[in-house]
Amino acid sequence: MTYDCLVIGAGPGGMRAAMEAAQAGLKTGLVEKEDLGGTCLNWGCIPTKLFLGSTAAAPLLHGQAKLKSATGELHFDLPAMQTRKDRFLKGSRTAVGKQLQALGVDVFNGTAAFTGPTSLAVTNAEGTTDLTFAKCIVATGSMPTAFPGLEPDGDCVLHSSHVLTLTEAPATIIIVGAGAIGLEMGDFFSRLGTKITIVEGMDRLAPTEDADIGDVLGKQLKREGWTIHTGRKVASLKTVDGKAVLTFEDGATLTADTSLMAAGRKPASDGLSVDAAGGATVGAGWIRTDACLKASDTVYAIGDINGRTLLAHAADHQARYVVRHLCGRTDAEYVSGPMPACIYGHTEVMRVGATVAELKAAGTSVEASVSQLVANPIAQSYGTTHGFVKVLWVDGRMAGIAAVGHGVSHLVSAATIMVAQQWTVEDVHTIIWAHPTLDEALEAAATAPRTTV
Amino acid sequence: MTYDCLVIGAGPGGMRAAMEAAQAGLKTGLVEKEDLGGTCLNWGCIPTKLFLGSTAAAPLLHGQAKLKSATGELHFDLPAMQTRKDRFLKGSRTAVGKQLQALGVDVFNGTAAFTGPTSLAVTNAEGTTDLTFAKCIVATGSMPTAFPGLEPDGDCVLHSSHVLTLTEAPATIIIVGAGAIGLEMGDFFSRLGTKITIVEGMDRLAPTEDADIGDVLGKQLKREGWTIHTGRKVASLKTVDGKAVLTFEDGATLTADTSLMAAGRKPASDGLSVDAAGGATVGAGWIRTDACLKASDTVYAIGDINGRTLLAHAADHQARYVVRHLCGRTDAEYVSGPMPACIYGHTEVMRVGATVAELKAAGTSVEASVSQLVANPIAQSYGTTHGFVKVLWVDGRMAGIAAVGHGVSHLVSAATIMVAQQWTVEDVHTIIWAHPTLDEALEAAATAPRTTV
Repeated sequence: MTYDCLVIGAGPGGMRAAMEAAQAGLKTGLVEKEDLGGTCLNWGCIPTKLFLGSTAAAPLLHGQAKLKSATGELHFDLPAMQTRKDRFLKGSRTAVGKQLQALGVDVFNGTAAFTGPTSLAVTNAEGTTDLTFAKCIVATGSMPTAFPGLEPDGDCVLHSSHVLTLTEAPATIIIVGAGAIGLEMGDFFSRLGTKITIVEGMDRLAPTEDADIGDVLGKQLKREGWTIHTGRKVASLKTVDGKAVLTFEDGATLTADTSLMAAGRKPASDGLSVDAAGGATVGAGWIRTDACLKASDTVYAIGDINGRTLLAHAADHQARYVVRHLCGRTDAEYVSGPMPACIYGHTEVMRVGATVAELKAAGTSVEASVSQLVANPIAQSYGTTHGFVKVLWVDGRMAGIAAVGHGVSHLVSAATIMVAQQWTVEDVHTIIWAHPTLDEALEAAATAPRTTV
Repeated sequence: MTYDCLVIGAGPGGMRAAMEAAQAGLKTGLVEKEDLGGTCLNWGCIPTKLFLGSTAAAPLLHGQAKLKSATGELHFDLPAMQTRKDRFLKGSRTAVGKQLQALGVDVFNGTAAFTGPTSLAVTNAEGTTDLTFAKCIVATGSMPTAFPGLEPDGDCVLHSSHVLTLTEAPATIIIVGAGAIGLEMGDFFSRLGTKITIVEGMDRLAPTEDADIGDVLGKQLKREGWTIHTGRKVASLKTVDGKAVLTFEDGATLTADTSLMAAGRKPASDGLSVDAAGGATVGAGWIRTDACLKASDTVYAIGDINGRTLLAHAADHQARYVVRHLCGRTDAEYVSGPMPACIYGHTEVMRVGATVAELKAAGTSVEASVSQLVANPIAQSYGTTHGFVKVLWVDGRMAGIAAVGHGVSHLVSAATIMVAQQWTVEDVHTIIWAHPTLDEALEAAATAPRTTV
């Protein structure tokens, strides 16, 4: 079989690429070794959001109980949640499968390996199929990484895919890594009554964000009963006598019922032989791409696998560009625009565009203006008033917006438009801000006095 | 005392006008007969949001219970909520009082009456103070109206300010009027266990919105146990033997423990004698304004009192314009831009810009594109998937966005920017939409196939 466009990997990037290519009239094939939807749908964004949505009443009750407005008890049925999650994911996979079929995309189940610049072999239990293509889009994504001495064993040392299948909440858990995965899973298990200990090698939670974000997050999670170790290196994490035992480099140890390794991901390019198609990998196997996301004359790489941004919506955006590029509809270089990112849960983190650190590293003079959520009536209504919204300015134009607090993920699209359009303070009042909304904290931050940071 | 700018009414419009005027260097006075903050802060938007936020866990638990994911019981303490509300409102009034003081605004407590084009008298229990001004801004707002035969008596026929002070939830309530006030208060009491009956003279709930919005709302609220009477006229609503008794024009009756009259508001212009300042009222007392929001050479009228848009943020927007106009910073006519409006609660309504009916009445050819929330993973995560997002198009540009469903108020600012900037479908992909978010339902609606409506 020969394809105008052959896509490897059916996650958010690959799915979008296959659909856009088919809609553009290209004969399109899609190779996936596991499930349609990839990590995002099956073991990532979506199941964690289902779990967080299912348990959202818990922190709200907790907040009101502190204010004496409510009392009560909630019992969550984790096996029932798992059943619902599995049913929803299966339904979603079926739905996207039908979409692909309706668009005429051929789906191949198996592992892909390049055999030349326009050919690859797909291998599964039934044998090997040889396919040829004019252009190929690699979108194989990434997977949990394993550091020496901290390898998930599926027993008491788990990675994120493991914990998403638990049917019983542990009494205690050690989470290594305080990025989105560690924080979201910690919040979820905390709602089920699990005692959370989180360990982060950097000096704060959410270490890719500015320090003020991690500070608020740390204070809030301590208030919720989390034990937090930041700036401490882990030597090993092992299952010992049916318990998870973490040993720090200084020799101190922690013990819990189970543990989650949520630090780092590695590229899913093993066995892909991208060099056979004229491409090359860097580091642990990330595919090197040029300014047009090309790995070679015939091969593009999008999403996690090119190592640029490990976010589903980044892959989607790259997919749309790459299909336009390979159809000859654009010859411009790829420009991502400001990238939004959220950490979900009861106390959320939202950012679009640059951090202070990124701007300073580029030698830019940065100003910041801030509003505290305590001044916002919607934050007050939920009794969750810790946090802030911060706007970063370069030459009088918005260069980044970040926020931490309850519900701040809801600000992401308005913030993305504002940063993408590089709003000035005058632009803020070209729209009417609805009252009362959490969004007014964004308006307040944008119009607050600025200080050089 | 003589003021460059004298403002009457300390609601959202008057407060903003006074602050902007003082910041512009004008000698500014502010007259208020009751509490700083007006209806919005004291008897409107803010207390209802506090109550809805305080009880938000209830419908979330209910939704998860249906999915078998959770069980539990919640008890809300209405007296404690009232105490917290009163404390919060008092704190907010103190805070805005300090802001006014810091800006040098003189605040007068009393009722204002114009005595001439540049003079008015402020009367309170201690006597009358005469003030003169170069320009005056009237921002006296509106209040619940009373139809003959349906007058709130404070016993079993209440208006919104009454119900906001209840310390015991009634077992049953009849709500007359299915606009924002009736729907929000109904949702709140429903969470406390009150059995809700809502009566609306028009043919649907939320009658100022398109019919498809009211249809979804009606179905959802019926599912939640509400009794809904639409398209039926009410002859009377009385307290009879300690019960609320509603009589329809056809003679049928309803009885409940209490009732809320939530239909219509009237202008708060009684005794203002705006004619003495060269102004005029229309209808029930709304102040007539020209294209620059002027009632006379010396008097502006902003917010509810001019009858244009009865929303706090409309008043705020008009206040900013009027201060610029009276300072000579603009001589352009007032343009509001697309107006956002939300009905809050578990199932929310959001709209910005025009309805189908408004566009058709203007003879415009309208297309609509829709996405159903059931396809959105965040809607799925909360188990609340009824509803949709709809984009209205005129000549290929967005003319209005409306939505109904859980959490749709969070879409309001992004939607406002999109409609204000009259986006085309190509504009939708000038930003990266974060995944997974409810906002993707907005993206999906904007890129869905269009049909002529």
